Amino acid sequence: MKGKMKVAVMNGIGKMGFEEREIPNVLDNEVLVKIDYVGICGSDLHYYETGRIGDYIVEPPFVLGHEPGGVVVEVGKNVSHLKVGDRVALEPGKTCGQCEFCKTGRYNLCPDVIFFATPPVGGTFQEYVAHEADLCFKLPDNVSTMEGGLIEPLAVGFHAAKQGDAHAGQSAVVLGAGCIGLVTMLALKAMGVTEIYVVDIMKNRLDKALELGATAVINGKEKDAVKAILELTNGKGCDLAFETAGTDITSQQAVSMVKKGSNIVLVGYGKTGMINMPMSLALDKEITFKTVFRYRHIYPMAIKAVESGAVNLKGIVTNIFEFDDVQNAMDYSVKNKAEIVKAVVKISK
Amino acid sequence: MKGKMKVAVMNGIGKMGFEEREIPNVLDNEVLVKIDYVGICGSDLHYYETGRIGDYIVEPPFVLGHEPGGVVVEVGKNVSHLKVGDRVALEPGKTCGQCEFCKTGRYNLCPDVIFFATPPVGGTFQEYVAHEADLCFKLPDNVSTMEGGLIEPLAVGFHAAKQGDAHAGQSAVVLGAGCIGLVTMLALKAMGVTEIYVVDIMKNRLDKALELGATAVINGKEKDAVKAILELTNGKGCDLAFETAGTDITSQQAVSMVKKGSNIVLVGYGKTGMINMPMSLALDKEITFKTVFRYRHIYPMAIKAVESGAVNLKGIVTNIFEFDDVQNAMDYSVKNKAEIVKAVVKISK
Amino acid sequence: MKGKMKVAVMNGIGKMGFEEREIPNVLDNEVLVKIDYVGICGSDLHYYETGRIGDYIVEPPFVLGHEPGGVVVEVGKNVSHLKVGDRVALEPGKTCGQCEFCKTGRYNLCPDVIFFATPPVGGTFQEYVAHEADLCFKLPDNVSTMEGGLIEPLAVGFHAAKQGDAHAGQSAVVLGAGCIGLVTMLALKAMGVTEIYVVDIMKNRLDKALELGATAVINGKEKDAVKAILELTNGKGCDLAFETAGTDITSQQAVSMVKKGSNIVLVGYGKTGMINMPMSLALDKEITFKTVFRYRHIYPMAIKAVESGAVNLKGIVTNIFEFDDVQNAMDYSVKNKAEIVKAVVKISK
Amino acid sequence: MKGKMKVAVMNGIGKMGFEEREIPNVLDNEVLVKIDYVGICGSDLHYYETGRIGDYIVEPPFVLGHEPGGVVVEVGKNVSHLKVGDRVALEPGKTCGQCEFCKTGRYNLCPDVIFFATPPVGGTFQEYVAHEADLCFKLPDNVSTMEGGLIEPLAVGFHAAKQGDAHAGQSAVVLGAGCIGLVTMLALKAMGVTEIYVVDIMKNRLDKALELGATAVINGKEKDAVKAILELTNGKGCDLAFETAGTDITSQQAVSMVKKGSNIVLVGYGKTGMINMPMSLALDKEITFKTVFRYRHIYPMAIKAVESGAVNLKGIVTNIFEFDDVQNAMDYSVKNKAEIVKAVVKISK
Repeated sequence: MKGKMKVAVMNGIGKMGFEEREIPNVLDNEVLVKIDYVGICGSDLHYYETGRIGDYIVEPPFVLGHEPGGVVVEVGKNVSHLKVGDRVALEPGKTCGQCEFCKTGRYNLCPDVIFFATPPVGGTFQEYVAHEADLCFKLPDNVSTMEGGLIEPLAVGFHAAKQGDAHAGQSAVVLGAGCIGLVTMLALKAMGVTEIYVVDIMKNRLDKALELGATAVINGKEKDAVKAILELTNGKGCDLAFETAGTDITSQQAVSMVKKGSNIVLVGYGKTGMINMPMSLALDKEITFKTVFRYRHIYPMAIKAVESGAVNLKGIVTNIFEFDDVQNAMDYSVKNKAEIVKAVVKISK
Repeated sequence: MKGKMKVAVMNGIGKMGFEEREIPNVLDNEVLVKIDYVGICGSDLHYYETGRIGDYIVEPPFVLGHEPGGVVVEVGKNVSHLKVGDRVALEPGKTCGQCEFCKTGRYNLCPDVIFFATPPVGGTFQEYVAHEADLCFKLPDNVSTMEGGLIEPLAVGFHAAKQGDAHAGQSAVVLGAGCIGLVTMLALKAMGVTEIYVVDIMKNRLDKALELGATAVINGKEKDAVKAILELTNGKGCDLAFETAGTDITSQQAVSMVKKGSNIVLVGYGKTGMINMPMSLALDKEITFKTVFRYRHIYPMAIKAVESGAVNLKGIVTNIFEFDDVQNAMDYSVKNKAEIVKAVVKISK
Repeated sequence: MKGKMKVAVMNGIGKMGFEEREIPNVLDNEVLVKIDYVGICGSDLHYYETGRIGDYIVEPPFVLGHEPGGVVVEVGKNVSHLKVGDRVALEPGKTCGQCEFCKTGRYNLCPDVIFFATPPVGGTFQEYVAHEADLCFKLPDNVSTMEGGLIEPLAVGFHAAKQGDAHAGQSAVVLGAGCIGLVTMLALKAMGVTEIYVVDIMKNRLDKALELGATAVINGKEKDAVKAILELTNGKGCDLAFETAGTDITSQQAVSMVKKGSNIVLVGYGKTGMINMPMSLALDKEITFKTVFRYRHIYPMAIKAVESGAVNLKGIVTNIFEFDDVQNAMDYSVKNKAEIVKAVVKISK
Repeated sequence: MKGKMKVAVMNGIGKMGFEEREIPNVLDNEVLVKIDYVGICGSDLHYYETGRIGDYIVEPPFVLGHEPGGVVVEVGKNVSHLKVGDRVALEPGKTCGQCEFCKTGRYNLCPDVIFFATPPVGGTFQEYVAHEADLCFKLPDNVSTMEGGLIEPLAVGFHAAKQGDAHAGQSAVVLGAGCIGLVTMLALKAMGVTEIYVVDIMKNRLDKALELGATAVINGKEKDAVKAILELTNGKGCDLAFETAGTDITSQQAVSMVKKGSNIVLVGYGKTGMINMPMSLALDKEITFKTVFRYRHIYPMAIKAVESGAVNLKGIVTNIFEFDDVQNAMDYSVKNKAEIVKAVVKISK
């Protein structure tokens, strides 16, 4: 018996609370991590506001949060690469290792994945988490556990950039400057993409994009974004586009903003599930559409990118909440979506 | 002065006629080809019925036809790889060789391409054509000039298969069993794809698909095509899908018919230019959408595939018309789209 | 207690014998397979003749054989995709599923692989084998268990062809017409490669190559193989080369036999471990050298290729020995390497 | 008649001189460039010392130099993207645009390439050069014409990095810290490679590597370079290796320094043309060897990388000579190969 820990639970739509639960035991291949920080993701907010995402339905009490960073406090018998005291980022998805997708290295598509905060699997808004050691990545000295938590969204950005086959010397446009748009921009920079244009309709987000290194930003409310991109690229269009807003208009703009033969990476989920695409134009330009589902093989490279200074991950954090304040953290985040880029909850004291 | 030749011209919507024109001279890098056969493409019919495709507008008199095969009758000074009497397939697009797309080997995206039967550039419904020798591919003894003409649509099929990264051992579904659907199926077979399912709503086309080697066919009018594909693949879905019908419904079905992580190749143009895509599902499955604009680097491999017997190209021809009968050829083709898979016009006597 | 089974063991260099052992129990994720046929591989002969391959040293009594096909006779609790009576091919290597290589889909590079007949792990010259069910692939009705055993060498051929990125319409040269050279040729044919030239110095092997579908063969004793290839390809060279002989001379020839920018796949191990390569010429031609270590993700596609008739796998078998005759099988194979393409041992009666 | 210009010529082995020649006229698709700087390449020195490289034999008087940067002073009729006064980097190779290699985007393999300072084609140690405008790339304001000249060797580094499929988060080892080794290192950094280890046996070169951003350097004279790399990578080996020295020993070390499944890029030419490779080890590790012949499609991205500050190209220059001092420039470079990283000749006053 290790004692008790504090767990934040969603007790219903819009209702957070706390429970006391047993600190979990570790299996031989696991470590126990004392959680320092957990980022709040858009999916957490969506569950909180509506109780579901598609077929994933919250049964209260349910633990949200899948962007955790913390410190190893106990190590399973078979674990050799981690020790007590190591600070770690936790990759949230445990996969089967046996299916066609795992075997071919595309474990993010494993149908039997167990992923934090995806009903019925609980998340990490709690003081301790037992997790597969192979999914816990040691942080270098100059990377904090808060950044460790944010490796999760950054991984989406890197996976998007890799899906697009981004490389040095290219120009890219990122549509949408929310958290995922910004981490995509950061990943593109780290991969040597030279010109990165960011489009949004909210000034504060565009300011953040500029602060974090966008080559130029375009406010789609103020000007024709397609025209602006064509002007910025001498009429040529970009080599790459990343759609992170999930709307018809931005998806359609992406097709007009890129050169023939380009990759467009679709990252954003829309409200209806459907996107109306100018497909004849896409065929004329022989566009490739890549899509993104979570990420694979990204944590090590993302951590290195933060360590080397290639990515300013701290820079995306706009709000930090105390664990005791988790109800407010959720409510404030729901109400101020436009203003917040990234909110995190500080779990440890 | 070489004398005159007979040229079939479109004199207006639904009106064919004949003109006498000078037999063209050849430039130093060209050959003169006496045309034997020209296939009738859906785009020819579209120009014939409506006078335009998008921004390409027919100014009569206009020469249709871009699927020619024939015999070399004169050779330009700088041409060494062809001689009089060689039978050839003519790749219809001349490209600039200098632009970003040509330089990187994607010449099908050259903005300055000159392509037969694409206004204002005329086509090949005429007795003689002068063409760049590099675009005239010698046919082996066992490949006829009629097949030479049909290399053009087959090239679309091979390019689609290559865009999809088709390979041995895969399963594929082809949606739409018109000419392009069938040549895609033939290309997939030649590339070693093991199971090829073909979906259409017209029985005669499905019969043709079976005759040409489809593993199984599904009549979408008679059963739920998605369900049928899942049954045929033990619930797994196909490794690849090719959408050649250009409709919302088939595009949406394709997303449901494939495994996670698959490539869907979009080949068909829709009527409105827009396709409403189930993009959230596509993201969940991390689908890649490739598109197809004509082809590149395909003629030599396509000719070899016909030569070796890997592709039964003759098998797609359902109708052969005499040159003098070109008005009827066009009218009959327009009226019997459902019945015809491929019609060709025999230009030479 | 299931009873006893007969096991052929290598009791020392050049000495085979038999032992009686317990029929193995199955773990929950395993099946028990009654072995029908096991192919004899060059590595089996090498262990038999010398007692070792590199750092892998035989400790007698040792069981050879890693090319087994048989019938499922018992099924572990957690196995759902196989049932008693299913005929199967057994992929010989069990991998960890956790290492960097397994996670990225390159399980053939797993450092912790457990592979049949690779000391200290025993092989399959025995009546029954318990094996991970995920590595046992059900054979279609028209594929025999002898062919099931031969899927193993065929898998090397397919992996070689895939490493070379072989595709329809290409020309390839295979250097060496032993078993691996021939299965590479068969794989290339199944993948649509149009012209396949085979080079060897033994007439009987070249005859076999022709019988199995080589476009042409070249006897390197009788003529200059490089010159012959250049003549066969109109001076251009091949698109691809596969070196399966493991000698300096054939490796060097390969560089001269291919076009600029080509892939050369190195499959054959040499006697000294070193190959003296004309690397300046390779740089001038910007050649890529791919290498092959076993295979990955090949069994399903290889079985399909045999099922569909694309690969005539039976055709490579030149000698069949009875189980009781295993000493002779090994001795005869050692003495008649030149003559034998593939020998198999019939384990079951 | 435009007047005369000064041209430095190689009059024989070890003998430079000057001639007065007509300033060249420009064709319609050319520009005339007043040359500011030309880098001295190892191949220039090799011609100077021995009169030949392979089958390329100098016929004096011969103009060396193929790394030029300068200012446009005249513009051909058909040139629209450049104007008088533009500062440019000149890509040295004119290609045919028609052959199989040009058509498929691999123009560096064009058999009909016309490349500066490659006998019988002269180079750019002269005041003016007329060159295809498409091969003259405008330099941004913050990139000097000296850097413009050095884009040429940097292009080799970028092409090597691209051939290796280098990407963010990887570790790489560069064997050889001469000019090409260092530009490869710079390219790898610009592409986001996180750890770059450089191996050489000369202290001054290793110091330069550290100054330009190597993660760590290893002096192969002082310690076992393979062991050192394994220590630096926690026993894992690097993800990538670049061999730029062209020796047996460094090529063999590369195979031992990398992880299984890695790419090794061979850039350096050896003295005998042959490299003795540990090919069995390479097969066991399933290594891919990529090779490098010049470069393709690199100038725009390389210029951008210098413009953005991602590459410190100036940093590789160790010696600048005046045009009048060209004899000394060559002699000094030959005698001090170990000391010099990059020497350039300032052509303009």
